[in-house]
Formats: sequence, C-alpha cells, structure tokens
Amino acid sequence: MYNEKTPIGIIMGSKSDIQIMVKAAQILDSFNIKHDDQIISAHRTPDRLAWYTKYAEQKNFKVIIAGAGGAAHLPGMISSFTTIPVIGVPILVYTHTQNTKLNLRYSSFGGLDSLLSISEMPNGTSIVSVGINKSINAALYAIKILANEDKILKKKLLDHKKKQYEIVMKESKHMKKMGLNNFFDNDNSH
Amino acid sequence: MYNEKTPIGIIMGSKSDIQIMVKAAQILDSFNIKHDDQIISAHRTPDRLAWYTKYAEQKNFKVIIAGAGGAAHLPGMISSFTTIPVIGVPILVYTHTQNTKLNLRYSSFGGLDSLLSISEMPNGTSIVSVGINKSINAALYAIKILANEDKILKKKLLDHKKKQYEIVMKESKHMKKMGLNNFFDNDNSH
Amino acid sequence: MYNEKTPIGIIMGSKSDIQIMVKAAQILDSFNIKHDDQIISAHRTPDRLAWYTKYAEQKNFKVIIAGAGGAAHLPGMISSFTTIPVIGVPILVYTHTQNTKLNLRYSSFGGLDSLLSISEMPNGTSIVSVGINKSINAALYAIKILANEDKILKKKLLDHKKKQYEIVMKESKHMKKMGLNNFFDNDNSH
Amino acid sequence: MYNEKTPIGIIMGSKSDIQIMVKAAQILDSFNIKHDDQIISAHRTPDRLAWYTKYAEQKNFKVIIAGAGGAAHLPGMISSFTTIPVIGVPILVYTHTQNTKLNLRYSSFGGLDSLLSISEMPNGTSIVSVGINKSINAALYAIKILANEDKILKKKLLDHKKKQYEIVMKESKHMKKMGLNNFFDNDNSH
Amino acid sequence: MYNEKTPIGIIMGSKSDIQIMVKAAQILDSFNIKHDDQIISAHRTPDRLAWYTKYAEQKNFKVIIAGAGGAAHLPGMISSFTTIPVIGVPILVYTHTQNTKLNLRYSSFGGLDSLLSISEMPNGTSIVSVGINKSINAALYAIKILANEDKILKKKLLDHKKKQYEIVMKESKHMKKMGLNNFFDNDNSH
Amino acid sequence: MYNEKTPIGIIMGSKSDIQIMVKAAQILDSFNIKHDDQIISAHRTPDRLAWYTKYAEQKNFKVIIAGAGGAAHLPGMISSFTTIPVIGVPILVYTHTQNTKLNLRYSSFGGLDSLLSISEMPNGTSIVSVGINKSINAALYAIKILANEDKILKKKLLDHKKKQYEIVMKESKHMKKMGLNNFFDNDNSH
Amino acid sequence: MYNEKTPIGIIMGSKSDIQIMVKAAQILDSFNIKHDDQIISAHRTPDRLAWYTKYAEQKNFKVIIAGAGGAAHLPGMISSFTTIPVIGVPILVYTHTQNTKLNLRYSSFGGLDSLLSISEMPNGTSIVSVGINKSINAALYAIKILANEDKILKKKLLDHKKKQYEIVMKESKHMKKMGLNNFFDNDNSH
Amino acid sequence: MYNEKTPIGIIMGSKSDIQIMVKAAQILDSFNIKHDDQIISAHRTPDRLAWYTKYAEQKNFKVIIAGAGGAAHLPGMISSFTTIPVIGVPILVYTHTQNTKLNLRYSSFGGLDSLLSISEMPNGTSIVSVGINKSINAALYAIKILANEDKILKKKLLDHKKKQYEIVMKESKHMKKMGLNNFFDNDNSH
Repeated sequence: MYNEKTPIGIIMGSKSDIQIMVKAAQILDSFNIKHDDQIISAHRTPDRLAWYTKYAEQKNFKVIIAGAGGAAHLPGMISSFTTIPVIGVPILVYTHTQNTKLNLRYSSFGGLDSLLSISEMPNGTSIVSVGINKSINAALYAIKILANEDKILKKKLLDHKKKQYEIVMKESKHMKKMGLNNFFDNDNSH
Repeated sequence: MYNEKTPIGIIMGSKSDIQIMVKAAQILDSFNIKHDDQIISAHRTPDRLAWYTKYAEQKNFKVIIAGAGGAAHLPGMISSFTTIPVIGVPILVYTHTQNTKLNLRYSSFGGLDSLLSISEMPNGTSIVSVGINKSINAALYAIKILANEDKILKKKLLDHKKKQYEIVMKESKHMKKMGLNNFFDNDNSH
Repeated sequence: MYNEKTPIGIIMGSKSDIQIMVKAAQILDSFNIKHDDQIISAHRTPDRLAWYTKYAEQKNFKVIIAGAGGAAHLPGMISSFTTIPVIGVPILVYTHTQNTKLNLRYSSFGGLDSLLSISEMPNGTSIVSVGINKSINAALYAIKILANEDKILKKKLLDHKKKQYEIVMKESKHMKKMGLNNFFDNDNSH
Repeated sequence: MYNEKTPIGIIMGSKSDIQIMVKAAQILDSFNIKHDDQIISAHRTPDRLAWYTKYAEQKNFKVIIAGAGGAAHLPGMISSFTTIPVIGVPILVYTHTQNTKLNLRYSSFGGLDSLLSISEMPNGTSIVSVGINKSINAALYAIKILANEDKILKKKLLDHKKKQYEIVMKESKHMKKMGLNNFFDNDNSH
Repeated sequence: MYNEKTPIGIIMGSKSDIQIMVKAAQILDSFNIKHDDQIISAHRTPDRLAWYTKYAEQKNFKVIIAGAGGAAHLPGMISSFTTIPVIGVPILVYTHTQNTKLNLRYSSFGGLDSLLSISEMPNGTSIVSVGINKSINAALYAIKILANEDKILKKKLLDHKKKQYEIVMKESKHMKKMGLNNFFDNDNSH
Repeated sequence: MYNEKTPIGIIMGSKSDIQIMVKAAQILDSFNIKHDDQIISAHRTPDRLAWYTKYAEQKNFKVIIAGAGGAAHLPGMISSFTTIPVIGVPILVYTHTQNTKLNLRYSSFGGLDSLLSISEMPNGTSIVSVGINKSINAALYAIKILANEDKILKKKLLDHKKKQYEIVMKESKHMKKMGLNNFFDNDNSH
Repeated sequence: MYNEKTPIGIIMGSKSDIQIMVKAAQILDSFNIKHDDQIISAHRTPDRLAWYTKYAEQKNFKVIIAGAGGAAHLPGMISSFTTIPVIGVPILVYTHTQNTKLNLRYSSFGGLDSLLSISEMPNGTSIVSVGINKSINAALYAIKILANEDKILKKKLLDHKKKQYEIVMKESKHMKKMGLNNFFDNDNSH
Repeated sequence: MYNEKTPIGIIMGSKSDIQIMVKAAQILDSFNIKHDDQIISAHRTPDRLAWYTKYAEQKNFKVIIAGAGGAAHLPGMISSFTTIPVIGVPILVYTHTQNTKLNLRYSSFGGLDSLLSISEMPNGTSIVSVGINKSINAALYAIKILANEDKILKKKLLDHKKKQYEIVMKESKHMKKMGLNNFFDNDNSH
C-alpha cells in the first residue's frame, strides 16, 4: 500500500510558495499518502536540480509535484533531468515588498507567465501543468496516477468525487426551494 | 401571461456564483417573471447536465440563463444538450482561499477565460454571452425574447428603458447647471 | 409560419463584413427563414441607426443579427434604440490595404477588440455576442428564439442537431477502425 | 479671447465617470477656459447623440472632450455626427456593486477595452484618444488646439510647461545631494 | 487660406513607416493642404528631436502628425519639446528580415506596444493617438483642427463625410435588393 | 507488457484536430504502445461523454489523451466523469473557411483560450494540460505514467532521452567548429 | 577600486519611482559601490536627456540604471544619446490620485507597457531590460559588468550568491524535517 | 585587444534559433570580436548547463549571449550558475511542423512567453533581456560592455552610431525634397 512508502515528492521554488503548496500536502494527507517536501530553487540552488532528480529516483517517487512562480523554471528543469512524471503548479502569490513603505504587491501577469513557462516546453521534454494555484488539483492528479495500481486508493477517489457531488446536490435543492433571492440573503459564506 | 408559468431557468456552476446571479433574479422579479434556480456543476455533477436539459424541456423553459466562472463549461454544455436558447454569463468573483492566512483572491484572467470559454464554441452549437458579470443584461435579454410574444412585457421593457433615460437626463441637467467641479463636490455617491 | 414573413434583420457595418455574414444568410436560407439584409455603418451613416430600429419595429423583426469589426459599435448602438433582441457578431476579416505595395493585413487584436466592444455594454443595455466570426451560431441562435413559438422549426433544429451528431459518429467509427495514423494518411480534407 | 465664450464641451457616458473627468475641468478652469458639461449616454439616451452634436455646432465648440468606460461608444459616436475634433478619454473606475455584500469591483480589462473601442475606429471617422484616465492630458491637448489661434493661451501653456520642468529639476537636485536612500527616508509622499 | 502655407508637419521614425504614412499625405493632398515630410528617428538621430521642434515652431505648423512603430518614442518625445498639438500614429508593418532565408516578419504585439507607448504618457505631456495604422484618420483629424478656423475647409470636410455616407447607402440598397447571398456572389472586391 | 493490451485512449473533439493528434499516435506507435482512437465532440455528441468514460473504464485505460481547440470543453468534461488521469492537449489549427473566397484562417487567441479552458478547472476536478499543440509531449507523459510500473518502458524512455541528447551534442559540436555564420550558410533545414 | 570613484548613474523618470529604485541603491551600497542619483524626466525635462548623457560620459560612468513607468521613454532615449550600457527598469507603482475621493490606483497594464517600451527598441539602439520592478537585479547586473575588471568585486558577488544558496538550503532542510503542513503553521512570514 | 581573445560566448537552445542568432554573430564579426558558438539545450542537455558555465569561466568570457524560444529557460539557467553577465534573446521563429501536411507554424504568444520567462527572474538572479529577436541589439550591448575598457572599440561604436545617423539624415532629406508621395512611389525597398 502506498501509505507505507513515500510515492510523492513535493518541491517548490521559494518559501513564499508554501501558502499555495500546503494545500497539496493537505489533500495527500487526507488520503494517507506520504510525501517528501523540499525547497529547490532553480536559480539560487541550481546544482540541486541534478541532485534532487537523483534523490527522487533513488526514493522511487512515482510523481513529483513542482510549484513555482514568476519565470517558473523549476518544474521544467526537474522534468529535463528525469523520466518521473512531473506535475507543474504555476504559482501566483501576494508578497510583501521589502524596504518600502507600500506593501501590497501582485504579479503583473496574473500567473500567465508561470503557466506558459511551465507548459510551453519543447517537444521531447514532456511536462504537464495544472491551472494557476491549483495545487489541490495537482495532488488529486498524482493520486489518480497512483490509483491506477491501487484499488483501495481508487475507491477513496470515487468516495471523494461522490462527496463533492452530494454537496452540490444539497446546495442546489436548497436554492431551488428558497429561490435565488432568499437563498442569497440567508447565506453567510460571501 | 408569463408570470403565471415559469419561463426562465437560472443555473450556475457553483454556490459562489450566487452573488452575481442574484442580480438576474432581482430583474426578473421586478418584471414579475418566474424563474427556476438551481446549481448544476458541469464538473462535480456532470450527469446532471443531461438531467437538467430534459427537465428544462418538460418545464417548457423559453430561455436558460447559465452563469459560470473559470473554465466555465456549464453554459456551453447545457446548450449542447438542448435547443432552448441559452444565455451565458461569464462570472468573476472574489473568493476566499481556504487554509491560508491570506484571503483575498481574484481570477488571474479577469474573466476573459470564462468569456472565451462561453463564446468561442464550435459552429453548430449556438450559444451567446453577455459581458463579464453582466447578469442584469442576461435577464433583460431573456425578457426581450419573451416580450416578442407578450405585448404587456414589451410595454414594461419600454417603461424600464424610459426610466433609465430620465435618470441620465436629470443627472445631466444637474451637472450642466452646477458645472463639473461643483457637481462633483456635492455628490456623495463616490 | 415564419417563412411567410421576414422575422430576421441582418445588418453589418461595412461591405467587407459580407464574407462572414453571408454564412448566417446561408443557414437561415437552409431553414427557409426570410431575412432582410442591409449595411448600416454606425460611423459613416449614424442617422441610419435610429432609422433602422424604427424600420425593424415596423417590420416586426423578432431578432436582429448585427455584425461589425474593429471598434464594432453597430450591435450595441442598435440595441440601444430598440427592445428587439440583438445578436452581435464580432468580425475579423483579412482586408487589402489601399495605396500600398503590401496587401496582407489582419486585425491587431484578433477580434478581441470587437468582442469586448459588443459584450462589455453597461447594465441596462442588454445585448449578447457570439464568438468571433461565429455568424453561423448567430443564425442558429436566432432560429432557436423563433422556434420557441414554432414547432415545425423546433423539429428542423432537432434534425439539424441529429445530422451533426451522425457525422461525428461516422467519422469516429472510421477513425477507431483504421487507427489515427492510417485515418490521417487517407484523409484529404487537410 | 477664449475665456469670454465657451470653446470646449465636456461629455461623459455616466455619472460614475465624473471622478476622472473632473480633472479635465480643473485644468480648463486653471487656464480660465469655459466648458459646457453634460452626461450623454450612448446607450441610455441614444437620441441625445444627434441632439448634442447639433447643440455643439450651434455653440461653436472648438473641441469636444468625451470620456467613457467599458464598451465606450460615446466618443466615436459623437465623432460620427460632427466635424468638431473629439478627444476620447478611456475611463477605468472602481465602482461599487449594487445588491451584493462584496463591494470592490474593477474593470476586467484595465481600460484596454475602452482604449481600443475609442481608437480602433474605421478609416474616415477620425477620432483620437489619450491614455486611460488621462483626462488631464485631454484638457491640455484641447488647450493646445485653442492656443494655435491665441497667443495669450500659448504663453500660459509655456508657463505651465516651465513650472513642471522646475519641479522636476528641484526634486532631482535634492535627490542628487541627499542620495537616493536618504531622499527616500525623508520623503513623506509615498 | 491654408493651401498657401504649410500648416502640417509629417514625421516618421523610419523609412519603413512610409507605406503607412503615405496615406496621410494622400488625404492632405486631396484637401489641397501642404505638408512638410521628414524622417526623425528618436533613437538614431536623437538630437534632431530638439532641432525639429524648433523648426516646426518657426514654420508655424498647426499640427504635427508623427508615426512610429515598436517602442514608438517619437510622437511622445516631439510632444515633450513643443506645445504644437501632436497626433501619434502607432505603426505596424510587415518588414523583411535581413540576412536570413525566411523573410516574413510581423510585430509580436500587433501594434499594441506602439499604441500604449504613445498614449500612456504621464499627465502634463499631452498627446493623442489614433488607432494602429490609422494614418488616414490622423490626417482627417488634423484637417478638423485646421477647419476650426477655415470655413472652406469645414465645407470640404462635410462634403467628404457626405460622400462616405452615400457610398454606404448605395451598397446597402444594392445588398437589400439582391439579398446577401447573391450580393456576395456578384461582388469581386474580396 | 503494455504492448499486449490497450492502455491509452486518444480522443479529440473534431476531425480537424487530427493533424495535431496524429503526432501523439506516432510517438506511442514508436514505443509499441496500443491506443484506442476516437472522435468525441463535447458539443455535437454530448451523450458520448458519459458513454466514453464507461467504455474507458471497462477497457481499463491507464491514461486518456484528449485534444480539443476553441472552447475546448472535451478534456475537462471527460475528466469530470472518471478518475482515469486525463492529459489535455489545447489545439490550434489552421482551418479552411467554408463558403468564402478567402481560405486562410487562424484562431484569434493563438490557443490561449483552449489552454485556459483546459487548465483553469475548479478545485476537485483535477486535469493537466500540455502546451499548445504539444501532442508529442502528451504521449511521452502518458508513457512516463505507464513506465512507473514497467521497467522495459522506463528503459525505452531513457534511450529516447539519450538520443535527443546526442542529436543536440552533435549539432553543437558542428556549430562550434564551423562558427555560427558558416554553419548557418551550410544548413538547409530552414 | 570602484568604491573610490562613481561608476554607476541611477536615474528615474519621476519622484514616484523612488520606492522601487531605492532598492537598487541599497544593493550598490551593500557592495560599497558609489552611485549618482538623479531624476530625469524624458517628458518634463526633455533637454536634460542630452545634458545627462554628456554628464555621464564626463563622469565616466560604466553603467546607467534607468527606471521608468508608463510609456517609459527614459531608458531608451538615454541609450540613444550614448554608448554607455543602459539597464532599463520597467516600473509599476501604486499611486494616489489627486483630486478625487478614491485613492487606490494601479497601472492598467501591470507594467507590460513599460517592459515593451524599453525592450522593443529598433535594431541599432541596443538597450536591455530587467523584469518589472526588478531594480535589485538591475543593480546586481551592473555589478557583474564592473566585476569583469575587478576581482574583489567578483569575489563579493560569489559570496552574495553563496549566501542566497545557504538560505534556501536551510529553509529546505527545515521544511523537509517538519513536513509542509507543520512548517507552514509555524512560519510567521506570510 | 579583444579581437585577439574570445570575449563573447553565444549559445542558443535549439538549432532552429540559428536564423535569429546568426545576426548577432555578424555584428560581432563586423567589429572583429571573436565569439564561441554552441547549442546548449536546457531541456535536452540539462547537464551541459553546469558544464558550459565552468567552460565560460575558464575561457574568461566577459559576456554570454543566450537565445531561446518557447519556455526559454536557457538564459536564466545559465545566469543561475555564473556571475558572468548574460544577455537573453527571446526568440520567435517560424518552424515547420513535422509529420503533417500543413507546414506554417508560429508561436501562439508572439514571443511574449519567452520575453517574460527571461526577464521575470526572481530577485538575486540578475539577467537582462533585449526585445524579441533583437539579437543585433544583444551583440551591440555586449560590445558596449567590452568598450568600457577598450577605447578602440568605443571609437568603433561611435562610428557605427554615426553611420546610422547619416543614413537617416540622407533618407529624410530625400523625402523632404521629393514629398512623401513621390518618395514612396520611387522607392523599391517595400
């Protein structure tokens, strides 16, 4: 069973990516799947790219989830060094600006730069990307890959899917009964 | 008369879309037009797509207003299953991020992804879109379709148009008289 | 029956839009629906906007299909003058440049400028848009509106849908049998 | 002298545009140039377009400054009806959303939709645009046009230019002397 | 009368811009308005910027039409040196690549880079822009400015507008009579 | 061994996508991996979505490669119905326009609409995307997933990687020796 | 040694750019490299462009770091007047709007307009750009150029690089040990 | 003198980039500056990144010019491994599609993906970029860096600048004399 070994490596390019990548960890935890978590900066620790891919192969990771923002070279570079499937997560975070009196900052391109930097790889270096900040979907996709060879995991995935289904069904019935206006007025989630 | 039956179905892909779609409901309510409101998630409840279109045909809906954000597959998929006219509403909402300490979030593409996902359908699957978050315009357009066969509704639409006209005329006269600077200083709406 | 009167007005902003709008006419012709075809330039014949909407109301058009490229003000302006539902078609054409030795030209924005100019109308002036150059879908949508009150037309729409279904099914079976590679090599359509 | 008659018409598409257009009025006021201020909505008061252009010609306006956001049809439509030079101001404002519990809202396209809707007019309908929300520049440009025939105004424009020059020179000298770091620490404007 | 002196300066940043700017010259010629034509490269002949503005003021130009592509600094820089109104023309041309075996080339940004570089000037440096490659509209706008003080020119502008009106009316009547399909089949312009 | 059963399903939304998807088939063929090829149109054959996912589960596909252009709903919808990992391929093709005299056509958004429609799925519906038209990478990624449980396949993947490495090394040595100019002049591939 | 003379000129187009450019000064200060700091507005003090480049050549600056936002002409214009290498910094700042009651403002193009205005210079006027607001990288790049001829500086650069390496290594080890979830919960930086 | 040793390394990510990078070589050749030319694929030969930077340091290159298209990781990765200044060239080429019957292909993002992937590097990994395909400017910038320490080279740069100046002056005088229309008609370069 997968929860005895560590089938997934999670890496990110910078400590600031953690607020997004923690959600992938939480999904894997909820499925009892172990993961190895590290920061590998393609630009500040470039020699760790080759090191990490060797490490990942020795550990026999089945999937690597790699999150990165800005120029986002990490997922593609890791994928260049190994044949382990890599799932890229383009990351867009709100960071604080050091040394200025203003402190709200966001990426000028809304994460599109990172999405393209991950997905637009040359033919031959196959990598895939989820949507911007969709670390939850990256974790679920990694579980789908593992579930190909693990019926218990497959069962858990179907249960997860069913639970989502039921939440929507319940909300919809509630809305249909109350009408859109009343439903909105009685809802506190927004 | 339309206000005796339910000629309009309103659907949305997720509970978070309600803050935008409630404005369509309010317009229909102000015209005394009944509407059936449900959440149909193309991705979490995919088998409800076929179910809903059969339901809509049995109920004899004249128009379906379908709001969705992100990849926004709902309006196009519903339109694929039926010949009832569907009006898509691309939705952009500010959502809260679960499990992080930051909580402001917005779509990376300002709703353009949703607008294109709705409008750029292949030839043969005809669907139309209003502008991003223009649920009010979707409701008014649905009323225009109904008004083709209902003179009382047509009259109400013309009254609605006239009222808008008069509001602008009044504001304009006021501004012309006071001058831009004074008008701005005495206005509290901004 | 709709084929005895003229329920649809087709307008376009310039003669160069005809290569796109002719496809809407062909769809309507194939459904035996009459249409009135005119060029109304929001910018070169601005007084014709008010004229046309009065004309359209006298003729009792049920839908106006309005195609325009570039700043594409025509659909929105027409919609401002009337309560007849207007379907906008953002148009992108390849035009020849006068007075130069180079003659290939395309829109700098791929039609996005026109799509936004049509769809991003203020609340209250409801208009809808199909995708760029999707005049076929505009015509089919107009037919859906008419079919709400015409069972024969509804039947024709379902037949049209069914025919599309069968074409795909046939191609798919053919591909499945031959395999992608052989299917590609034996196909002359690309 | 221009300050005896009213050479400039200022129009805007909606009351919400006033927060941007008031800056044009302030510039004109500071040059003692009279202006006529009105709200003309291309979509809510479409018949006022023809009316306003006749009015503008009777008043013998030399320039019309027209601000509009979203689909921004106003500047182009006014320009279609008259040969008075029109300066378009694409407007991007933060508006409050009615009927929801969230109230921050911004245009999905950052004003690009409005800029293109104003500038990408077909050949023959000549109009010009300033940058997004650059109502100040629109007013100064209008003054440049008037100054072609008014030496006193020309002189005032040169004085205005000179004052801007001196402000920059003073700031620069101050920065050069203190060094960037100290200058930043002692500055309270950010 | 304006056709006795030279009221308009036309400049462009590079010889390759001529294919677009020649259309402005043709419009001015058709109105019998003299123009002074030069190449001023903001980047290759930067000291000519100050020279040209002095020259333009001595010649008493009423308007400067300045075309430029790519980073398009020319219109804004000229406007920085003078109070003569400048109309910027963002230029997108198809150029041939030297020294390669491939020779088709186009701007990566469809002219948007040039449009923004011209229009997004800081407050105080007022400049206006026409749409991409709309040199015809720049010329017509310059004529509108001149026509403010020249009734004969105003009359010519109105005649030009009327001629455009009549062309559209004639095409529209022809299309209405023949129907869209036949009109398209009999038309040789596309 | 995988080449005895059919572990991969290839689907595409339209026959026109075949020119891109055939490259995925060729890669799989070169690795001796069987694949099942079908056309499933989300919009023309919507009931085939549910059918295909049941079929794919019965056939025990390990990966589904789904190519689609335009609004590109196919990959996400298939992924909504099943827990088999789906790899989306955003497709951009040059298609011929029916019924017009012009026949060159391209997508207005360069495939970005399709890339976003595939990747920007809501949390919970996990799907991944390769870059635009990167069907080769989709096939290689599918092989990586299979190779997790198949050492022979892993070995083949490493050989494939090594061959790519050697091609670049050879070209680089050649270029270094000849110099860039001579290398370019003697090369016939461009 | 470089810290005895002033090898770097820092200029910016406006006082509001200082909050970004101060970070370049801080990097240079930490390397003990002197810099000359001035405000040169391409548009408000255009004659200072020629003046500054003469000044820079007399001072024998080795590199000029030029920051500018909006149309961002400063870096390219300075580069046009001199052969000293210029590093452009596209600047995006949050500014306060004068004279309105709303005061949050951001650039409509996220700095892309400035990035393109700096980088898309015609062949022959060579200039380079760092990423948006990456003034830190501009300073480090300037130091790299100086370090080509200064072994002590080269050594300092390597030390700076090593320190960055060690920070990432330490964070990564910490995360690996604690696990992503615990690391996130115990971290106070976000 | 620089023409005795090899101060410049030119690298590119793929053989297809040669058609753009050859222009950098030609500029360097015309200044008699030696360069070392290699293909280093970040994705196909990832271990060559570390190798090349060691090689470059041993050869004592003063500048590395690195061209890459698509995800364009090469320039940033090389810069991560060394303190030699790297100039990135975002490359957009027209490539032929293997294995299809269609053969015209272009990048979906016009090179913007490459420009951002090069410039949007995290703080600390300083790299600069020229505009898309501006390999000529990259070469001239490299020469400017070398010329800081080489008066003969500085003189050559000034001569190059002067020659460009004179070409523009000659063309401008010719145009001014002939008039735009005649100049255009007599010119054979377009």
